[in-house]
Amino acid sequence: MTILVVNGPNLNLLGQREPDIYGSTSLADIERSVRSRASEIGASVAFFQSNSEGGLIDYLQANGPASSGVILNGAGFTHTSVALRDCVATLNIPVVEVHLSNIHAREEFRHTSLTAPVVRGIIAGLGARGYLLALEYLVAEEHAS
Amino acid sequence: MTILVVNGPNLNLLGQREPDIYGSTSLADIERSVRSRASEIGASVAFFQSNSEGGLIDYLQANGPASSGVILNGAGFTHTSVALRDCVATLNIPVVEVHLSNIHAREEFRHTSLTAPVVRGIIAGLGARGYLLALEYLVAEEHAS
Amino acid sequence: MTILVVNGPNLNLLGQREPDIYGSTSLADIERSVRSRASEIGASVAFFQSNSEGGLIDYLQANGPASSGVILNGAGFTHTSVALRDCVATLNIPVVEVHLSNIHAREEFRHTSLTAPVVRGIIAGLGARGYLLALEYLVAEEHAS
Amino acid sequence: MTILVVNGPNLNLLGQREPDIYGSTSLADIERSVRSRASEIGASVAFFQSNSEGGLIDYLQANGPASSGVILNGAGFTHTSVALRDCVATLNIPVVEVHLSNIHAREEFRHTSLTAPVVRGIIAGLGARGYLLALEYLVAEEHAS
Amino acid sequence: MTILVVNGPNLNLLGQREPDIYGSTSLADIERSVRSRASEIGASVAFFQSNSEGGLIDYLQANGPASSGVILNGAGFTHTSVALRDCVATLNIPVVEVHLSNIHAREEFRHTSLTAPVVRGIIAGLGARGYLLALEYLVAEEHAS
Amino acid sequence: MTILVVNGPNLNLLGQREPDIYGSTSLADIERSVRSRASEIGASVAFFQSNSEGGLIDYLQANGPASSGVILNGAGFTHTSVALRDCVATLNIPVVEVHLSNIHAREEFRHTSLTAPVVRGIIAGLGARGYLLALEYLVAEEHAS
Amino acid sequence: MTILVVNGPNLNLLGQREPDIYGSTSLADIERSVRSRASEIGASVAFFQSNSEGGLIDYLQANGPASSGVILNGAGFTHTSVALRDCVATLNIPVVEVHLSNIHAREEFRHTSLTAPVVRGIIAGLGARGYLLALEYLVAEEHAS
Amino acid sequence: MTILVVNGPNLNLLGQREPDIYGSTSLADIERSVRSRASEIGASVAFFQSNSEGGLIDYLQANGPASSGVILNGAGFTHTSVALRDCVATLNIPVVEVHLSNIHAREEFRHTSLTAPVVRGIIAGLGARGYLLALEYLVAEEHAS
Amino acid sequence: MTILVVNGPNLNLLGQREPDIYGSTSLADIERSVRSRASEIGASVAFFQSNSEGGLIDYLQANGPASSGVILNGAGFTHTSVALRDCVATLNIPVVEVHLSNIHAREEFRHTSLTAPVVRGIIAGLGARGYLLALEYLVAEEHAS
Amino acid sequence: MTILVVNGPNLNLLGQREPDIYGSTSLADIERSVRSRASEIGASVAFFQSNSEGGLIDYLQANGPASSGVILNGAGFTHTSVALRDCVATLNIPVVEVHLSNIHAREEFRHTSLTAPVVRGIIAGLGARGYLLALEYLVAEEHAS
Amino acid sequence: MTILVVNGPNLNLLGQREPDIYGSTSLADIERSVRSRASEIGASVAFFQSNSEGGLIDYLQANGPASSGVILNGAGFTHTSVALRDCVATLNIPVVEVHLSNIHAREEFRHTSLTAPVVRGIIAGLGARGYLLALEYLVAEEHAS
Amino acid sequence: MTILVVNGPNLNLLGQREPDIYGSTSLADIERSVRSRASEIGASVAFFQSNSEGGLIDYLQANGPASSGVILNGAGFTHTSVALRDCVATLNIPVVEVHLSNIHAREEFRHTSLTAPVVRGIIAGLGARGYLLALEYLVAEEHAS
Repeated sequence: MTILVVNGPNLNLLGQREPDIYGSTSLADIERSVRSRASEIGASVAFFQSNSEGGLIDYLQANGPASSGVILNGAGFTHTSVALRDCVATLNIPVVEVHLSNIHAREEFRHTSLTAPVVRGIIAGLGARGYLLALEYLVAEEHAS
Repeated sequence: MTILVVNGPNLNLLGQREPDIYGSTSLADIERSVRSRASEIGASVAFFQSNSEGGLIDYLQANGPASSGVILNGAGFTHTSVALRDCVATLNIPVVEVHLSNIHAREEFRHTSLTAPVVRGIIAGLGARGYLLALEYLVAEEHAS
Repeated sequence: MTILVVNGPNLNLLGQREPDIYGSTSLADIERSVRSRASEIGASVAFFQSNSEGGLIDYLQANGPASSGVILNGAGFTHTSVALRDCVATLNIPVVEVHLSNIHAREEFRHTSLTAPVVRGIIAGLGARGYLLALEYLVAEEHAS
Repeated sequence: MTILVVNGPNLNLLGQREPDIYGSTSLADIERSVRSRASEIGASVAFFQSNSEGGLIDYLQANGPASSGVILNGAGFTHTSVALRDCVATLNIPVVEVHLSNIHAREEFRHTSLTAPVVRGIIAGLGARGYLLALEYLVAEEHAS
Repeated sequence: MTILVVNGPNLNLLGQREPDIYGSTSLADIERSVRSRASEIGASVAFFQSNSEGGLIDYLQANGPASSGVILNGAGFTHTSVALRDCVATLNIPVVEVHLSNIHAREEFRHTSLTAPVVRGIIAGLGARGYLLALEYLVAEEHAS
Repeated sequence: MTILVVNGPNLNLLGQREPDIYGSTSLADIERSVRSRASEIGASVAFFQSNSEGGLIDYLQANGPASSGVILNGAGFTHTSVALRDCVATLNIPVVEVHLSNIHAREEFRHTSLTAPVVRGIIAGLGARGYLLALEYLVAEEHAS
Repeated sequence: MTILVVNGPNLNLLGQREPDIYGSTSLADIERSVRSRASEIGASVAFFQSNSEGGLIDYLQANGPASSGVILNGAGFTHTSVALRDCVATLNIPVVEVHLSNIHAREEFRHTSLTAPVVRGIIAGLGARGYLLALEYLVAEEHAS
Repeated sequence: MTILVVNGPNLNLLGQREPDIYGSTSLADIERSVRSRASEIGASVAFFQSNSEGGLIDYLQANGPASSGVILNGAGFTHTSVALRDCVATLNIPVVEVHLSNIHAREEFRHTSLTAPVVRGIIAGLGARGYLLALEYLVAEEHAS
Repeated sequence: MTILVVNGPNLNLLGQREPDIYGSTSLADIERSVRSRASEIGASVAFFQSNSEGGLIDYLQANGPASSGVILNGAGFTHTSVALRDCVATLNIPVVEVHLSNIHAREEFRHTSLTAPVVRGIIAGLGARGYLLALEYLVAEEHAS
Repeated sequence: MTILVVNGPNLNLLGQREPDIYGSTSLADIERSVRSRASEIGASVAFFQSNSEGGLIDYLQANGPASSGVILNGAGFTHTSVALRDCVATLNIPVVEVHLSNIHAREEFRHTSLTAPVVRGIIAGLGARGYLLALEYLVAEEHAS
Repeated sequence: MTILVVNGPNLNLLGQREPDIYGSTSLADIERSVRSRASEIGASVAFFQSNSEGGLIDYLQANGPASSGVILNGAGFTHTSVALRDCVATLNIPVVEVHLSNIHAREEFRHTSLTAPVVRGIIAGLGARGYLLALEYLVAEEHAS
Repeated sequence: MTILVVNGPNLNLLGQREPDIYGSTSLADIERSVRSRASEIGASVAFFQSNSEGGLIDYLQANGPASSGVILNGAGFTHTSVALRDCVATLNIPVVEVHLSNIHAREEFRHTSLTAPVVRGIIAGLGARGYLLALEYLVAEEHAS
């Protein structure tokens, strides 16, 4: 059972900049804690980050079918990419959309997510822990199905 | 450490009606599994449900200050109640907003949450498991602080 | 066969105030004529009025399942209550929404009804007679089914 | 006492097509049951159907003044015709707007009625029975005046 | 001559929380100073607070007719309650809407007041003094009429 | 030199109904005074009225090319007919749009004219005299060209 | 196998006016080339043009059921006619909407087509050739079914 | 009988610039022809132009009461000035709003006139002749009253 | 301690025109009663009225810094002037915005105040007394600071 | 004569997923039938697909100038990419926009095409045949020019 | 070669107030540095500031024609004045719009500039240096033409 | 001191196409003149162009931190890319947004810039000179800091 953890643009900078919004945890830190928790509960995870909309779609098309679930933080593409939405809609596995910050408490254009209507659920504003919660959910769902 | 689990209008009917949207789990089932998980991780929970906006506010005013966190499923009031939002904004403890269904995949008026900008974070679309994830988050935060 | 006649906020003042909009008939007058007509056609009716959104929902949850139909005049809640809408949506019996005045000829915010999309039908602008017509409909439907 | 029953575009096809929305009753069936009920309560009715906006206006101008009331199902013109609205506004007799389906539960452009603000009242979503209820109303009003 | 001072949801917490927005004066402090000023100018006041929309409406229906004026701080209901607006519209006495904070300098959804169009006037942003000014106005109007 | 005077739906009722908005002058009265003034200034006029959008378009297509100008009161079609606009746009002669009432002081949907952007100019709110002024304009323009 | 080619208002003027938008080909030219191509591929076509909304609906109701497909250029009615949309929605045969010009490159009100959501497909901006392509499509579909 | 002809900002440049929109006639030319026509029909006119909103209001307040009518070309203030609208609304004499160009065929912000709802009528797009027609109207109205 | 009382366009006409909206009190009457009350409570006032946006700004820039507070009735400029707002925002003294009528019960464009977000508070709909209340507030604030 | 057939994101998955919307034909199937038809009518085609906005632009910049026409299915980028629109606008050859599904019958955000205003024409909803029709058009145009 | 530097309302207060937004440089400082740079590159400048919309228009009408370019900081009028826009549109010389602050990072109503579409270009957010850059541009353009 | 000059999609075609909008200067020409001016004032510049959103972000992430400022012409991405905006927001160096054309005088969708609120300032409509002015600004700021 493999869970994909797919991160969109600028998330590679996590922890270095704008820590007042995104916290001081880096994406590598998140990867470490997600991998650690995954191994505890018998799952493996694959991490991917890209600043390119096409790169994210290519990755999801290539790796989605063989995986058991996706944790997707589309970052800026969340609000603008019909292409990413269409890609997610083609996946037959559960996708959980994660946002580190509470997007509803920020600029108005972040209140709308184009991918939200085609994912299983959304976790927002719970910081890096949101990834762990999404992992718990996907593994539990896999076991339940 | 006590976590309040506050449920809004019509959630008392959970499991009985519209199972295609909300699943067949009842609110009592959710309460049972949340209590069970809470006792495992050393937390106690208090459950409350009301169909009355004022009732929810009275409860939160009375019980919020002495608690460590709130899991709030405002149901229909999520989208219409400035009063509930103002009440939540006065609480000094973390609040996690939970929705059983993916509100972004339903009617447009459910896409806007008046409480979302004043809570810590949101979990939506992950069914009854959303309550458990919110509990995990609040307990972990309490331990981390 | 029991039909619920559920009236929202301020309808208890009917006949006393703003007769230019709502007419001089009181809610008691309406109740009398509805009861009279109901007994003629072999139906019984239960009248309820509340100024409280939660009160209306509690009543509908408690009494809806055992009834054959609902005549609902949500008054001011018609235009603002997602909670009432959700409550109505859980009922498996026909609901007819009634408005004494022609809501489309009044302020713009009265042109939108949140409950309208989940009821069977709407009668508006026909004054107190609207209740009688709704009764006729519900009884006829019951007989036809 | 004559009541006009005026039907707009495509209603001549009633019963033949899209029965999931409009039911299997034909316009002739409706006419039969309205005539039957009218004769019971001492009214006569005149039925008219046209696919032409101008045709409906011509008819209402010619026959409205000598009638006691109008049952108007403007169908598609309901949502687009200022000319029909202006025509209705010139009539000095009560007009009841009837829609077979619940227009508020359908496409957004059907939620707005240009004629609604200038009629006495609206009955929507109650199927063919809506015509009978409108007839009852108009006859009762005539007797009351 | 009795003036009603009616306060909506969360105003019971005044002075305890969010003092940067609402100041450190409590509702009891306001009551004290309003009562003191009222006795100076020969008026009596009745204070009421509720977190329930229906509770406010019940109170206004029961006590409005015998009073000489109302000072209404609807708080969160100001922006969402058609039911409260309808209730206020039935009162035949002057109503002054008071807001402690300048609602036009806050979130956009606070810029619209559903009750404003049916009250005599509005005082906003002048803190607790707004209640005293409203009192002065109502007493002066009563004397002038 | 022939000027067409083309009148849309319900204008045949002019003078009979809603005199508070449209005045007591009938369309025949307007025709008489326009013909009288036209003969004084050496022009002939052709009057046409129809309640049918297609009828107006047929008339304008048939008679527009041989005329020197058009006075168009599209009435209700003014605000809804792209077809009439397209027809007017094909005419190579000056068209003056005339409205008896001040459409900007009436319902919001009357503030927008679909034909206005493709006519030479508009005269609104000057009552029956608007036709005479439009006639003066068209004749003067013809002489000037 | 008969294909209906139905043309809306002002298309009878094609080729005579506004050639910069619509080209110099007349509707008769289009008819000739469509008939010629139809006979080559074993189909017959029936041409109809009307400036009247009701006329188009009458024609489609009368002739649609016995035909194999419709090429519909609703012209100005495309953007305003719910009645025409409702009529098209009742047809059980494929309808291809054709526009000579690229309606998306013109005025904003031409960007919305009320009929588009209920037709099989749309061809716009390809001039008179659009009719031929629609014909090819309908004949190919008929053979494929 | 004196008619005021009041011209707003930039109209003093008429004829010098942007002749493709406003024509080559200067404001002095218009004044000459208006004066000439006025003397023929027994009226006197007073011309005023200002680039200042306050200047126009001062003038109308000072001179409006003693005049018989106003021809008002508010130019740019037409679309933005509530103050000018309020000033016009205080006048008890007929005001005709004149625009040289067809404002409905220009930028969208010119389609809305704040003064239009409070004037008697509007003449737009008829060039300098619009002033003469407005004069004719005001003199005729004065004689008729 | 000097309070500026600054009045915008058309307020010089107060009492003369549209008394149904603005009452019969003139601006001189208001000035008299404000001066009288000011002398009682130990304050001096300076009155200013202008129909010119620039005039109001010039005055506020020149006299604001030496004053203790401003009572501002911007009249029509309230809804349109960013320049006046910017001017008010530069003042370091409390400003109370006063409107004689209840602007929320009038035309929609009067519901928005550009100055409201940068003033201390607003008093609207309380007629001439609103000025006195604003004076009381400003003097009390001055004493309290 | 070479025609480019350029396909946007997720079209490489055609036929594998969501066949209820897009049909079971794969992009390879489409390529085969387009090539087959092209060779019959003496044209050659170049197929390109990319999930990357920049990839599509690079391709069009590199290959557009030497080709005779483009068949463009921008997929998700159709609704969001100003960059792709700007790229298409620089091409001096005819571009036909093709969509397999009827985008006007799907989600609202698919109703707007940013590229549509800068292409020659659009074919939507005709499935894979839309590519063939676009090919026919481009070859015919090339021969006609 | 003379360049006009025209400054709108409240800019005379520059440097004194709200230095967090506008910096501590005064308008006199800006004038000094612009004059200094102008003399270095062989241009002369004329500075003008007014709080009056009409004053700015009068100045531009009087001095624009003889100048070689305008640096315009319309301040608050930028967002509200059609009259200023119309004035700028009549000038045949290049106009550069300058804003000290980044208007796109401030309140929403500052994001729209009515003058922007009729000027040559805009420089915003670069503080007082924006004036110098605009000067460089205008002088370079003059030399290049 | 190095200044990055970052150019978005289609700017590599500058000078070749649509010279009526963008002028005949190529991007290489701009690079030459910017480099020439930079060397005069002691700065070095790095030029980059990409049609890929991800490519631009990658470049800015990699090169931004070591540079002293960025001149950013995001072209089409300006109006659609939240990802680019987020990337710019992470940079701690001044960014000047440059547009060759006056985006406010073009299509409405070009009036909004997603990056504008997070850059230091904007220069638009001044053609290739805009790059030079931005360079001057950034170098002067660097010297001043």
